[in-house]
Amino acid sequence: MRRATEIDLALNERPDGMALQRWLYGELRAAILQGRLGPGARLPATRDLAARHGVSRGTVLGVFAQLAAEGYLSGAVGRGSFVASELPDGRFDAAPASEAPRLARRKAGARDTAKAEIGLSARGRLLARSAFAVDGRSFPSRAFRPSQPDLQSFPFALWARVAARRSRLLNRSMLADGEAQGYRPLREVIAEHVRVTRGIACAADHVAIVGSAQQVIDLAARLWLDPGDAAWMEDPGYQGARLVLEAAGARIAAVPVDAHGIDVAEGQRLAPAARLAYVTAGRQAPLGPALSLERRLALLDWAHTRGALVIEDDYDSEYRFEGRPLAALKSLDNAGHVIYCGTFSKLLFPALRIAYAVLPERLVEPFVAAWSLTGRHVPLDQQATLHAFIAEGHVGRHVRRMRELYGERAEALREAARRHWTGLLALPPIVAGLDAPAFLPVGADDALAARVAAQAGIETRPLSSYAVGHAAPAGLVLGFASIGVDDIDAGARTLARVLQAMLYKT
Amino acid sequence: MRRATEIDLALNERPDGMALQRWLYGELRAAILQGRLGPGARLPATRDLAARHGVSRGTVLGVFAQLAAEGYLSGAVGRGSFVASELPDGRFDAAPASEAPRLARRKAGARDTAKAEIGLSARGRLLARSAFAVDGRSFPSRAFRPSQPDLQSFPFALWARVAARRSRLLNRSMLADGEAQGYRPLREVIAEHVRVTRGIACAADHVAIVGSAQQVIDLAARLWLDPGDAAWMEDPGYQGARLVLEAAGARIAAVPVDAHGIDVAEGQRLAPAARLAYVTAGRQAPLGPALSLERRLALLDWAHTRGALVIEDDYDSEYRFEGRPLAALKSLDNAGHVIYCGTFSKLLFPALRIAYAVLPERLVEPFVAAWSLTGRHVPLDQQATLHAFIAEGHVGRHVRRMRELYGERAEALREAARRHWTGLLALPPIVAGLDAPAFLPVGADDALAARVAAQAGIETRPLSSYAVGHAAPAGLVLGFASIGVDDIDAGARTLARVLQAMLYKT
Repeated sequence: MRRATEIDLALNERPDGMALQRWLYGELRAAILQGRLGPGARLPATRDLAARHGVSRGTVLGVFAQLAAEGYLSGAVGRGSFVASELPDGRFDAAPASEAPRLARRKAGARDTAKAEIGLSARGRLLARSAFAVDGRSFPSRAFRPSQPDLQSFPFALWARVAARRSRLLNRSMLADGEAQGYRPLREVIAEHVRVTRGIACAADHVAIVGSAQQVIDLAARLWLDPGDAAWMEDPGYQGARLVLEAAGARIAAVPVDAHGIDVAEGQRLAPAARLAYVTAGRQAPLGPALSLERRLALLDWAHTRGALVIEDDYDSEYRFEGRPLAALKSLDNAGHVIYCGTFSKLLFPALRIAYAVLPERLVEPFVAAWSLTGRHVPLDQQATLHAFIAEGHVGRHVRRMRELYGERAEALREAARRHWTGLLALPPIVAGLDAPAFLPVGADDALAARVAAQAGIETRPLSSYAVGHAAPAGLVLGFASIGVDDIDAGARTLARVLQAMLYKT
Repeated sequence: MRRATEIDLALNERPDGMALQRWLYGELRAAILQGRLGPGARLPATRDLAARHGVSRGTVLGVFAQLAAEGYLSGAVGRGSFVASELPDGRFDAAPASEAPRLARRKAGARDTAKAEIGLSARGRLLARSAFAVDGRSFPSRAFRPSQPDLQSFPFALWARVAARRSRLLNRSMLADGEAQGYRPLREVIAEHVRVTRGIACAADHVAIVGSAQQVIDLAARLWLDPGDAAWMEDPGYQGARLVLEAAGARIAAVPVDAHGIDVAEGQRLAPAARLAYVTAGRQAPLGPALSLERRLALLDWAHTRGALVIEDDYDSEYRFEGRPLAALKSLDNAGHVIYCGTFSKLLFPALRIAYAVLPERLVEPFVAAWSLTGRHVPLDQQATLHAFIAEGHVGRHVRRMRELYGERAEALREAARRHWTGLLALPPIVAGLDAPAFLPVGADDALAARVAAQAGIETRPLSSYAVGHAAPAGLVLGFASIGVDDIDAGARTLARVLQAMLYKT
């Protein structure tokens, strides 16, 4: 049998800092995969290899053992080592492990060498469209970033203290798999919170903790909709919800929104047999009105009659500047057709990634099973920290402080609008939330307006990006919660300047 | 217009501890929804209501304002308040908010009153079957809980210290939305980890951080499979993967496993055009063999030729008791057809909920977009803590310590098997992992064996629960990693006793 000569075994030089064993393993493996050491070839004696490369014989023996365990070599102690004879003959373009970073870069170009591509599925093409900033958000925030709470005002040191205390007090049992439905003490304080602030009759058993409202919509759509089933979307409406419903195969019925929220009668005309309706009843995204009581009752009556599911996404209506927050649609849901979603991403901070659903009793079990299968549960110590933060009253205090602060900023935006935006942007009254729509003159191109604003350092979102079936009114969604009143005024001036130039070509 | 008399407005007594305003609001709202105060009815004067119920007039005005904001009342200051005339006439079985907890319980029975039920979709029926313990796991662990690391040996105080330090050092920018793909410093140390321990040529750009391997399988199946497309499952194989693939609409091809892992030639015969193959190449779940090198190359060749995707779930092969961990299948994936999944749930602790995928370059963007749309990202401070824990070398040290400890426990299980299980359970050699299969006499009912063992306080998982298409050999999966050697021996004795009784009716 052929013994691998020294020429067969030209090894690449060992990179600085790489362990001898890892280097030798990578070189021998590459030589075998590339066919320089063919099937059945006999390897040099371990003693010779060791002497030639200035390594200990133990190192060489370790490498041979590893290659034998992985199937590259066969042989018996004392009788020499051979390249496994059943291997294919050197088709593999294998680089040694020492080449890893270079290979990683090279693989960018490897696209062309694939014989058959891995193509996205039809539904995959719908799923691979994110509504979100996948690269994250810059900090601090800028005028007028929509749906953004003020992170400068978050009681950061307090949160860190609670988290650190929780870490020290953490019971070892908190390392084990937790309940898929969520940490029970957290579910209890959330149930109490929505009972008091939203009038929702519920207990901890109806609450499920997840990472985001998107997960609730995604799971609910898959659980209770088959591909091709119709779902009502508010039009204009929240893009994140629409994309995830479409990815789940829903046929979207675009139901118009007016000053009383989603037009339920029109929904019944367009898609009476829809299986699901997605609504932002507390503060319609993006236009702002609360769903009227009459329509709330009509929506529930339709859902009840048809056996349809309503998802109420209550993303920021906690921040209501006059009076208490409105009761949730869910508070009227006696027959159990509404899944209510709340999130701490806007109440506290986005990187927290804890949201929750309040489910009708008979939907809890399938929802939790599906969540357990696909997501398992939210990290337990994160849930425990949030529980302590709520139970100690910090969330309530923070929300009250922010409600006042955001109210002042909403007023500052109104002021700035009066001062700078006449003839450019019309700002309706702001009663709640973190952002507000402002309307451009009829016929203006709001996507263009958002682009020229972005070039001047102003973040907005055009209303056209919320369009579902019908054209949305031309306008921009403006966040006012995450920046100070001076920045609001300065941003409003800048925005006026670029809109003036765009609209009147000055 | 009719003025609501005092008789019309019989209010329930205020529960102890409930705020006056919340009580009065709930009572009036219920009276309207139940029709006791009909559409157009005039409410008592605020002054009279205040006097009658011993509350301030300000409280009554606040309640009227809230009810007006929510659409229950209309009217103008000084001219009285009326129930909104467009409301339906008292069809709603509304309880006041003060009844919330009672209502929550009552709703369990509301199922029968629904006019039309919300039925699970066809795919929902597949999605609502969890493979996991939705109620969490008891602590401490018991003999022989499968796939369970030892939480007693986890350096708990050290983790808490790192987490507390991270909390104190946390930058305020870490409150904002992070990168959907994951915290970059964490992705960098993970890339380094899999380069060194698994021979995978990759960089941080190829790594995506998620909450669990289940999420990787779920997203990959939806992105690259359409409903009805075939997917290879190892048979017997991991139930969690099979259920989530089925829920995504995959047609499962049950490919047999032998001593060399999944039978690739048989897979090619059964479903040559499959779009996806799920493999546990490092340590086949549940039978244990590593996928042979010849089959690894054949699998990659098939995937390359057909444009299929391979998911390599490397759940616990890090714990290899002799020699280094084997290189991953992914280390041979030059053409970019393998998604490698790793998890920290078994390496560190299950409640952590951080896993990762190493993706071929051209699959990164659609995967991250889909993850961003459905899950957004993993909590940022959790990622930062894990990053610090890895970067400071604690993970490496912990894995080395646990490898030794689990090796001793595997040996203790072998010892116990020799002592107690002759004629009852055959235990093949254990080379890696947290659990091992043991085989019952041919023809034995392993599901029954698992049940009788459970009655005696012994946790196992029958091999039949891993069956995909063919009957699995009769046997039990036994975890040895999470309990001490004394408990292993005692558990083995108990298991022998119940199996003896079951098999030989003694």
